[in-house]
Amino acid sequence: MKELQIELIAVGDEILIGHTLDTNSHWIANLLSEAGLRIRWMSAVGDDANDMRHLLRHAWNRADVVLITGGLGPTPDDITRPTLAHFFDDELIERLDLRALIHDRFEARGLPLPYGCEIMAQFPSRAQPILNREGSAPGIHYSEEGRELFSMPGVPSEMREMMTEYVLPRLRQRAQGVYCFHLLKTIGIWESQLYQIIGETEALAPVQLAYLPSIDHGVTLRLSLAGTDEAAVKDELNRKVNLLRHKIAPHVFCEDTRSIDEVLLQMLRERGERLAAAESCTGGLLCHRLVSIPGSSDVLDRGFVTYSNQSKIDLLGVRAETLARWGAVSEETAAEMAEGARRAAGVEHALSVTGIAGPSGGTAEKPVGLVYVGYSGPGGAVVESRRFSGSRDANRRRSAAAALTLLWRQIKDLSA
Amino acid sequence: MKELQIELIAVGDEILIGHTLDTNSHWIANLLSEAGLRIRWMSAVGDDANDMRHLLRHAWNRADVVLITGGLGPTPDDITRPTLAHFFDDELIERLDLRALIHDRFEARGLPLPYGCEIMAQFPSRAQPILNREGSAPGIHYSEEGRELFSMPGVPSEMREMMTEYVLPRLRQRAQGVYCFHLLKTIGIWESQLYQIIGETEALAPVQLAYLPSIDHGVTLRLSLAGTDEAAVKDELNRKVNLLRHKIAPHVFCEDTRSIDEVLLQMLRERGERLAAAESCTGGLLCHRLVSIPGSSDVLDRGFVTYSNQSKIDLLGVRAETLARWGAVSEETAAEMAEGARRAAGVEHALSVTGIAGPSGGTAEKPVGLVYVGYSGPGGAVVESRRFSGSRDANRRRSAAAALTLLWRQIKDLSA
Repeated sequence: MKELQIELIAVGDEILIGHTLDTNSHWIANLLSEAGLRIRWMSAVGDDANDMRHLLRHAWNRADVVLITGGLGPTPDDITRPTLAHFFDDELIERLDLRALIHDRFEARGLPLPYGCEIMAQFPSRAQPILNREGSAPGIHYSEEGRELFSMPGVPSEMREMMTEYVLPRLRQRAQGVYCFHLLKTIGIWESQLYQIIGETEALAPVQLAYLPSIDHGVTLRLSLAGTDEAAVKDELNRKVNLLRHKIAPHVFCEDTRSIDEVLLQMLRERGERLAAAESCTGGLLCHRLVSIPGSSDVLDRGFVTYSNQSKIDLLGVRAETLARWGAVSEETAAEMAEGARRAAGVEHALSVTGIAGPSGGTAEKPVGLVYVGYSGPGGAVVESRRFSGSRDANRRRSAAAALTLLWRQIKDLSA
Repeated sequence: MKELQIELIAVGDEILIGHTLDTNSHWIANLLSEAGLRIRWMSAVGDDANDMRHLLRHAWNRADVVLITGGLGPTPDDITRPTLAHFFDDELIERLDLRALIHDRFEARGLPLPYGCEIMAQFPSRAQPILNREGSAPGIHYSEEGRELFSMPGVPSEMREMMTEYVLPRLRQRAQGVYCFHLLKTIGIWESQLYQIIGETEALAPVQLAYLPSIDHGVTLRLSLAGTDEAAVKDELNRKVNLLRHKIAPHVFCEDTRSIDEVLLQMLRERGERLAAAESCTGGLLCHRLVSIPGSSDVLDRGFVTYSNQSKIDLLGVRAETLARWGAVSEETAAEMAEGARRAAGVEHALSVTGIAGPSGGTAEKPVGLVYVGYSGPGGAVVESRRFSGSRDANRRRSAAAALTLLWRQIKDLSA
């Protein structure tokens, strides 16, 4: 069985000079992946006809399907349409039907036709236009020599509509065989520790195992398998997932694409309970992560960014003696911060973080990277310490992740 | 003068299957762009030695400099190190110095060496290791046939440190001739508004003008000029900077690489004054941005993430009548939040943000994207409203930037 070989090309200077983050390629990769298809080559090219022709030559040689985003608009830096025509030894001809569609689109909105817009009706003679329901530039579909090329606009909404409605159904039809994957998302354990537990992966063959570590979101394990018979592939994959899950179950927080933040919010929502957070060195990052998730307001009640000692006393009721005796970065302060946040907010659960993020501020006894994360809940308070050794940014992000890990373990225990 | 030809390759199945958005490439493109360097080819490749060798062959043929991110970790799917050695017809040898560094790294944290970690000390014999200050996998630097290849870890913090400290200085040195640039960093004005003010750029020639917009940090204008004689280049550049500065001065917050956050903290530090923040829809993001800057603790006193109405009443003294009559997202609530934060913290300045970040929660009267940012200071309170039209993430980030812009204008007026 031969897997469909897909190549994806993003066109535009704005990507190469770092003005635009290429979210289109990520979105397409994700869409195809969920459909059991896989991109083999991915690249970006500037608004340069020579560079684009070069890349097209490679792509057309090695891939079954070439997907292109960007460069279809009406301005002179939009070169995809003429470059494709040239590459396929084709010519651009005026398509009255496309011209009418472009006119209609502006007329329907009561707008005058923008200068230069009609150039988008100059269309390669042997290609098929892809209807643009979200904008005015038509997509381009070449089907030649047993291969296919789909060229779509770079505007995300227009590209997404074409991918979903036009391209994906055609790829599904073309694809032979199946590709399945399964995720085991872990938190609170390093990649190397997981590797030690899991050991050699020969027993998993032919299933492939990939480690995907993230400073914010733990380590995701992805198991994948390609084959011809969907039932057989799924069956084999499931057997190997079970084998692996068995070894690392205590560290797995979910087996789908949700983040630890989403899982925690959902766990608390299901329990009908609420959360507060008291942050010193993370300075709002912990709350920011949770608030990033739509609908977090029914779980996260409030947060305290208690950066100064006085604010810890005022807002959280941390005792001045505790601060004087043990310091702001201490197990005792972390516990009082969490307890204080829980009490002040009148909620079931509270987290606290206090530490020395660096780059300065450390001592021999309390070095840069020393962090305490605290939890207060119905069963009392728990504090854990960590020693990180990264930059200020990394230490703060690891601290927030450690606090969420602590919360996850506590809620899991409560729910067990 | 020939421009340096740079190729960037991101390694990892996780990019091709859409699990990970490749922010590394975007970050590098941006960093190089600010330094006047440009990436010509950008691509992603999976954890497949054959595909990687193919890509390396092309890259090594056409580029002067090849940058690689990812695939340097200790697990079997990390194939960059052996693949590079194979590509360069080199061999991996055990480097005791690297082994010691890896050991030290874990020992310093009082941790046992994770299983498999020592494989990272197996290093290509002809390559130069790049010190990893943020993690344990060393980077790889090949310098052969007049070309250079830098291979860095995919962990963003580790890659960023290597790019800034090791790679960029070497690329700068390699770029021939002199290249000078000057930044005019603006905030609180859109790219299109700036474009309208500045108009055609012929008068600036031969100086190049680039607009670098950022959702978080305003629009940076970069003026650059390349040449052979440094004094002449600087002189010409300065004349054109003066020409441009004159037109947009009220929007320029600095002319170096500092962020608006750093500039604000410094302005307040010089005044010996302190800041507090009350956040609803930004949910900690505003504080997080400020705390990201080392030394922010002498300016930022505390923050309130007042997500629920009750927390706005409890912590900030927002009146229940105000919430009932005008709603949580209103000019009145924003003003009371800022005033309450300033009072509660006992500081000179306070910011507030309240809005509807989306994707849901909007009404006809108060649509998604409506945000109020408030300021309270010695001279009273000011509230501004904004109507954003992006995603939840974009709306929250724009809200935080709007609050910082408001603060900057206020402090600038006070200091004038």
